[in-house]
Amino acid sequence: MFVILVYDFGEKRVGKALKICRKYLTWVQNSVFEGEITEGNLKKLKIELTKKMEKSEDSIILYSFSNTRYTHKEIIGLEKNVPTVFL
Amino acid sequence: MFVILVYDFGEKRVGKALKICRKYLTWVQNSVFEGEITEGNLKKLKIELTKKMEKSEDSIILYSFSNTRYTHKEIIGLEKNVPTVFL
Repeated sequence: MFVILVYDFGEKRVGKALKICRKYLTWVQNSVFEGEITEGNLKKLKIELTKKMEKSEDSIILYSFSNTRYTHKEIIGLEKNVPTVFL
Repeated sequence: MFVILVYDFGEKRVGKALKICRKYLTWVQNSVFEGEITEGNLKKLKIELTKKMEKSEDSIILYSFSNTRYTHKEIIGLEKNVPTVFL
């Protein structure tokens, strides 16, 4: 399936969330990730993220699409997907 | 069409972006919006947002879906869609 994931984690935990998401999905920009993922890997991703999150402060939004990708993706403004920043 | 919009605006401009997006879309959480929108309104939304944004600092990601909504949306952790905060 295809998923779009947006997380909002506290500053102390945001680096860990980024690292986990990048194992499974493609980083789009800031806290937004997308990609094809198996149900098994999606389960693993959710388990890893929920272990690191502070449920009273952090949040994850996960859109799943069974058999379609988006028609169009547009990024306006600053292109923040510069992976070297995180190396 | 159905769109998912995520913005990342500087603190000074984030309130304006929120106000503009809420005119056209449904607020999901934090900087994430979704909804059915006509091409005409999407154009208006983009014009209004780009007028308020600082292109060297801010960004907008816009996913468009021609004829489908997502199959499933899951929110994990804190439910931040509390509109009263912004009234």
